[in-house]
Amino acid sequence: MSGEPTPIRLTDAQRFDWLRLIRCENVGPRTFRALLNSYGGAHAALRALPDLARRGGARSVRIPSVAEIEQEFEAARRIGARFIALGEADYPQLLRQIDSAPPIIALRGDAEIPRRPCVAIVGSRNASAAALTFADRLARAIGAAGYAVASGLARGVDQRAHAASLETGTIAVLAGGHAKPYPPEAAPLLERIAAQGAVVSEMPIEWEPRGRDFPRRNRLVSGLSLGVVIVEASRGSGSLITARFAAEQGRAVFAVPGSPLDPRAEGANELIRNGATICTKAEDVLIELEPMRERGAPTTFGDEAGEPGEPLWGELILPGVEVEAAPRVEPGSQFDEPSAPSIDSGNGADATRARVIALLGPSPTPIDDLVRSAQASIRDVRIVLLELELAGRLEYSGGNRVALVEAEGSA
Amino acid sequence: MSGEPTPIRLTDAQRFDWLRLIRCENVGPRTFRALLNSYGGAHAALRALPDLARRGGARSVRIPSVAEIEQEFEAARRIGARFIALGEADYPQLLRQIDSAPPIIALRGDAEIPRRPCVAIVGSRNASAAALTFADRLARAIGAAGYAVASGLARGVDQRAHAASLETGTIAVLAGGHAKPYPPEAAPLLERIAAQGAVVSEMPIEWEPRGRDFPRRNRLVSGLSLGVVIVEASRGSGSLITARFAAEQGRAVFAVPGSPLDPRAEGANELIRNGATICTKAEDVLIELEPMRERGAPTTFGDEAGEPGEPLWGELILPGVEVEAAPRVEPGSQFDEPSAPSIDSGNGADATRARVIALLGPSPTPIDDLVRSAQASIRDVRIVLLELELAGRLEYSGGNRVALVEAEGSA
Repeated sequence: MSGEPTPIRLTDAQRFDWLRLIRCENVGPRTFRALLNSYGGAHAALRALPDLARRGGARSVRIPSVAEIEQEFEAARRIGARFIALGEADYPQLLRQIDSAPPIIALRGDAEIPRRPCVAIVGSRNASAAALTFADRLARAIGAAGYAVASGLARGVDQRAHAASLETGTIAVLAGGHAKPYPPEAAPLLERIAAQGAVVSEMPIEWEPRGRDFPRRNRLVSGLSLGVVIVEASRGSGSLITARFAAEQGRAVFAVPGSPLDPRAEGANELIRNGATICTKAEDVLIELEPMRERGAPTTFGDEAGEPGEPLWGELILPGVEVEAAPRVEPGSQFDEPSAPSIDSGNGADATRARVIALLGPSPTPIDDLVRSAQASIRDVRIVLLELELAGRLEYSGGNRVALVEAEGSA
Repeated sequence: MSGEPTPIRLTDAQRFDWLRLIRCENVGPRTFRALLNSYGGAHAALRALPDLARRGGARSVRIPSVAEIEQEFEAARRIGARFIALGEADYPQLLRQIDSAPPIIALRGDAEIPRRPCVAIVGSRNASAAALTFADRLARAIGAAGYAVASGLARGVDQRAHAASLETGTIAVLAGGHAKPYPPEAAPLLERIAAQGAVVSEMPIEWEPRGRDFPRRNRLVSGLSLGVVIVEASRGSGSLITARFAAEQGRAVFAVPGSPLDPRAEGANELIRNGATICTKAEDVLIELEPMRERGAPTTFGDEAGEPGEPLWGELILPGVEVEAAPRVEPGSQFDEPSAPSIDSGNGADATRARVIALLGPSPTPIDDLVRSAQASIRDVRIVLLELELAGRLEYSGGNRVALVEAEGSA
């Protein structure tokens, strides 16, 4: 597809370091990106991590041992999962465009399926019989039209959507690791999906999913998809979280209406009120998505899918601030030579750090305000923020605003 | 309310002539308006009618006898209905603004109720239990908020909406005459509405409603209302006609969603798809209508509600055409002196008529094109159109386009 950058291919050593880095304490997709952009590679980032976290105020930061990561590779091998890094050919194309795309996913099954144009179908666990029937018909029609169907393997609508699209292409996204599928009774369906479709997880293979992992997982369900259909959702349902992620990611949002007297329809009706497209038949989805499928992908978050040869992740662009040159990640050579930047080595580094920290507080501050007020370079500010984040003392809101939080273990 | 013209009050003789004129063959609200604007009063129009129709090509036009109209007044008296003319104080204020407002309505009950801010609640005759419950709750909440509730007395949703708003104010609009309520089993409910609310009909008191009278009636249900709520409607349901009238009349359209698997919800879901406001609770309606209620009325069709002292109906304004001075209807004096215009008296009148008729065909032609191509005055063209309409040879589409039809009895 045009506009897709030339894929990278990690060496075994690089893949090992990537996995180890993303499994570190306080390292999420954003921190991972900042570390890679600052240090030029995962290996160098791992070496820098303890010092960075200490400067951010942490007594220590937990880095998994080589043995632990070897065990995870072994667990993946046993279950038939393989790790695919963001930027590699098999990484799902739409997923790489989202703001918090996982640097590495573990995938079972056919990697081609999540790279197809995809529609997510999600809904209530306690779905009505009508909703299940509708999900079934919808998934079949959408599958017949050439789309893959993504969902979350939950009881009710999700499982029905998977089952109805097994033959045309289905993708289950797990909240936990591949070795800990949830709900447990879905294990037989999951095995069929792994055999005929694809199963995706960003979590450690042996990770037992907890409550907060489910909303986090939902951003991947929408991130994989051109559009999301909410079949039935009560107020406060997890499906509404998927719809919110979809809207934030520039994906189309569809909702299936229901009687106002049925509380299971309340969330979907509310979505329609707020602008979701009403969906009463597959054509409603197909007509709206067809132009996107032809165009290849939504263009809302575009720079990663831009020109071949661009950096793996775009620089963090701050509105109104001229971006200083920073170490660039070049395909091929990008993970070999750590450039080990730090503001520690220069004059006045501690003073800069102190100024930035002094400007931060419990209420979110725009990063560009921070850069202006601290009279520091964007690069230095970014490094201080990285330090604080690794120390668990920083919280992002909306991607461009940061607030200080009190973390356990902070100095 | 500001902007409302000074009410007129018809004499008994005028009221008699108005009723007689509107009961003439081929005289609908539009023709009635054209006749009154051309002849200055119903009495003069009645005298001119036979000649006009003959010139339009009819062998004869049926004008009810004085005895027939006397009988209708007597039938109205017996059933407790009275005739209210457009422009009189008791004529419902919103209704007078619609394009095809009936010149006379027959009203039983409290004339104050249809002059209140009003919401129409309509829906399926074969409504689901859920729809009936919803209609009941909605009508109660809307009534409690100070709105009258209008509907069509049909089985199902309509009757439920009436029953639930009996105490707060309800208006039944009949497709037939007051003496022939439909459906017959609604007679007890109708009597309660007449006692506590209001019943409106534009048809002769003894008129037995036929199929085509129901859609015609629906324009009054929406015309009386600031907004229309469609509670449940299958594809092709009469409620959708009410919704279409409401949209044409500039009224708010609300629809109650339902499961895509329930054919009774298909029409309402389709309305939502096409831009109707989704209604799952009374607040959805109240929030949208509150500003209209405060403003007094929709402003889409505004000229009638403009300045006091304006003609009873505005001139037929043709886009791009300068309107020639025509006999004006002045309040008070307006129905006394017929000015008896005709193109018959001038030179070349037959030639003008022939040119206009030659320009007409079975496909609709814009009236302003007609005026330009016939090189005739707008007044003369209007009179020719009136002649043809009275002869049953003219059909309007969209208000500003006319087509020739073959009528029985045409020369």
